[in-house]
Amino acid sequence: MNTTDVKGFFASREQLEMADYLTLEYYVECVGNIDTALAHFCSEQSTAQWSRIGYDEDFRVRFGAKVIDLQILGEREQLSYPVTHSEKGTIHACRVTIAHPHRNFGPKLPNLLTAVCGEGVFFTPGVPIVKLLDISFPESYLREFDGPKFGIEGIRDLLQAYDRPIFLGVVKPNIGLSPEHFAHIAEESWMGGLDIAKDDEMLADVEWSTLAERSRQLGIARQRAEKATGEPKVYLANITDEVDRMKEQHDVAVRNGANALLVNALPVGLSAVRMLAKYTQVPLIGHFPFIAAFSRMENYGIHSRVMTKLQRLAGLDSIIMPGFGSRMMTPEEEVKENIAECLQEFGHIRRSLPVPGGSDSALTLETVYRKVGSVDFGFVPGRGIFGHPLGPKAGAASIRQSWEAIEQGTSLEAYAVGRPELEAMLPSGNGGNGKA
Amino acid sequence: MNTTDVKGFFASREQLEMADYLTLEYYVECVGNIDTALAHFCSEQSTAQWSRIGYDEDFRVRFGAKVIDLQILGEREQLSYPVTHSEKGTIHACRVTIAHPHRNFGPKLPNLLTAVCGEGVFFTPGVPIVKLLDISFPESYLREFDGPKFGIEGIRDLLQAYDRPIFLGVVKPNIGLSPEHFAHIAEESWMGGLDIAKDDEMLADVEWSTLAERSRQLGIARQRAEKATGEPKVYLANITDEVDRMKEQHDVAVRNGANALLVNALPVGLSAVRMLAKYTQVPLIGHFPFIAAFSRMENYGIHSRVMTKLQRLAGLDSIIMPGFGSRMMTPEEEVKENIAECLQEFGHIRRSLPVPGGSDSALTLETVYRKVGSVDFGFVPGRGIFGHPLGPKAGAASIRQSWEAIEQGTSLEAYAVGRPELEAMLPSGNGGNGKA
Repeated sequence: MNTTDVKGFFASREQLEMADYLTLEYYVECVGNIDTALAHFCSEQSTAQWSRIGYDEDFRVRFGAKVIDLQILGEREQLSYPVTHSEKGTIHACRVTIAHPHRNFGPKLPNLLTAVCGEGVFFTPGVPIVKLLDISFPESYLREFDGPKFGIEGIRDLLQAYDRPIFLGVVKPNIGLSPEHFAHIAEESWMGGLDIAKDDEMLADVEWSTLAERSRQLGIARQRAEKATGEPKVYLANITDEVDRMKEQHDVAVRNGANALLVNALPVGLSAVRMLAKYTQVPLIGHFPFIAAFSRMENYGIHSRVMTKLQRLAGLDSIIMPGFGSRMMTPEEEVKENIAECLQEFGHIRRSLPVPGGSDSALTLETVYRKVGSVDFGFVPGRGIFGHPLGPKAGAASIRQSWEAIEQGTSLEAYAVGRPELEAMLPSGNGGNGKA
Repeated sequence: MNTTDVKGFFASREQLEMADYLTLEYYVECVGNIDTALAHFCSEQSTAQWSRIGYDEDFRVRFGAKVIDLQILGEREQLSYPVTHSEKGTIHACRVTIAHPHRNFGPKLPNLLTAVCGEGVFFTPGVPIVKLLDISFPESYLREFDGPKFGIEGIRDLLQAYDRPIFLGVVKPNIGLSPEHFAHIAEESWMGGLDIAKDDEMLADVEWSTLAERSRQLGIARQRAEKATGEPKVYLANITDEVDRMKEQHDVAVRNGANALLVNALPVGLSAVRMLAKYTQVPLIGHFPFIAAFSRMENYGIHSRVMTKLQRLAGLDSIIMPGFGSRMMTPEEEVKENIAECLQEFGHIRRSLPVPGGSDSALTLETVYRKVGSVDFGFVPGRGIFGHPLGPKAGAASIRQSWEAIEQGTSLEAYAVGRPELEAMLPSGNGGNGKA
């Protein structure tokens, strides 16, 4: 590209009708001339050839992505990670803000993904290292999306649970239990105080535990637990399946007794989530498989924040995400950013309940609560409840006792006196999360 | 885990009924004791708690993933890439083979992805660095999939094109052309010898070029070109859209004159591809947005080969993938592996036409042909045809002339004499790929 060619891919916010653009934040490492590399970066993700041969026309004005802000972070001796590439020259780390005209693809998730993290973005000459950090949407674009049908408030109303976290539990053993045994364990956990007993994200509709039979058994167990406790309870059934079976799975699960549904957002695709969110009669909760494969590298891929935002946009009422536990290998700041993406202002889109998860138990609740900074979150132990040495009922009770201690400003140790469920979880107790 | 716990996640192939298992190859970097880390790796991706508390049972026998082969590649001073994690100890790079029981999820792509590259795999204590390298399927599992409906042979029959590569071209300017102008350019390229004129992967159904109107115009232009040349031609329409609109988009495009369809596999989701492959009346061709975000790091994420294999399994008749051009930042070996994934024996699943793409032109055809090693590939220039200085017809002709030169064993320079279309592409000619 010559200098004039390059200039056509730079603009200021003032020159643009920003309602026509998404604003994209990228971390990039440019090799050689920065402006040329970034002009290519814009060209490749929008109108790569902006005129017909022999015509005096310029499609960049309406259809070109444009650099509207650039921060050069510094020179680097080498790329953050080795990548096969052909350009020569100085390497600069940059943070670049791109205005990308959404008329190029419209309010459609697969086409949005194609534009902002597709071939153009990851195969630009001179830009071998890229991380998509964030997307901002104008109101006019957001209005084309419904977002969550229930949101945090809908989930709270369903459970009649206010002013406290929502307590979920992943029934364990997660793989291998018959529907009967699964229902028995879930019932015990509800009896102990759990709000939501859930399928593991890996457990869906399988021969040895069909969704139909499992949801039937869980529906019956749920009604018993609701009667016994006088509290609404939720069975969260995993309907992750081939996309052309998901509506049918919704119908089966809801008819039989599931009153919330789990879906693995990236494995089915964000667009399938949006489809399901329009259709669902009950809250839709998302799980996070696949996301770490492209979000863990600090300087490459797609930031998990983008996925949280898109999952909320697609309509998930609650988003399970890697939480604070050291097992989750996610920097604390990143977990907090993902929680914020669920809760912050986002046009007319309802708030989604964030569920930062990973190896939680009665012992980690206060830490998670303090880090989240509000009661608007879901807490989702697995073995912390179902591996409790006194059984799932005691496991669930230990979580509720832990919350009571927090509410009362009492230490867990003090509150555990006379409460064997909590006591068993203390390091001084007979502890342990079962086999693991 | 204690030693007995760990042992339950190791087995030999001879001990297992391998038809019940997928075989997964991973590159991992383990921190601390290798066997313990790998037992956790198996546990987390299958039955994380393998018995109920108080019961003498062991779900690992039927439901546990198991290490069946381990190659310790060596000690490392540090992880390949910095990752927040908590384990301490020596770091070992390993290649590990896991037998994963497919009864845990069944023949469903979203559930398969959840198991093999989900939370368990990427959040195992002691395994902060993982790359899924390959999946092998037993025949019994493959039989549950239909694969491509047309495959290479179907595409060749449609075009009546045998014993040579298939020549595709991405109509450029890719974004911004009206349907009329788009059709005009496509028609010229067909007249020049192109087999398949295609929508860019970023161009789908948009207000300024609806799929209905574009496919109508292209259908008419295609018939004219077929009449004039006496050869079958293909308009490849991009129906990438929200998944609940894709069947309707298929119907509109096919009714109006598209005779092959493009879909961006990862943005819509592999399961939506499978749905569409069952439904389609015409060949379905996939494009590769999003894949680089998790496949470019040598030691982290998911190898592109896995995605090629799954796209073929899902039913794509042809797979467009990053090719040999230096712009594509993909090691040559990886491109060849992806081509091989399309062509090699895969149970009853038809072969898929590999289309290694990226900045191609008449000048790169011979190199690509030699590297592929057979005529069973698609060649897909964009600006190499539509940025040709003498126009798209000449651009398409230059590609066919380039192939004639290869067939006749003549140099491009010699063959270009008296052939201005090819001559214009030579470095000695007035060359150039238009504005770029």
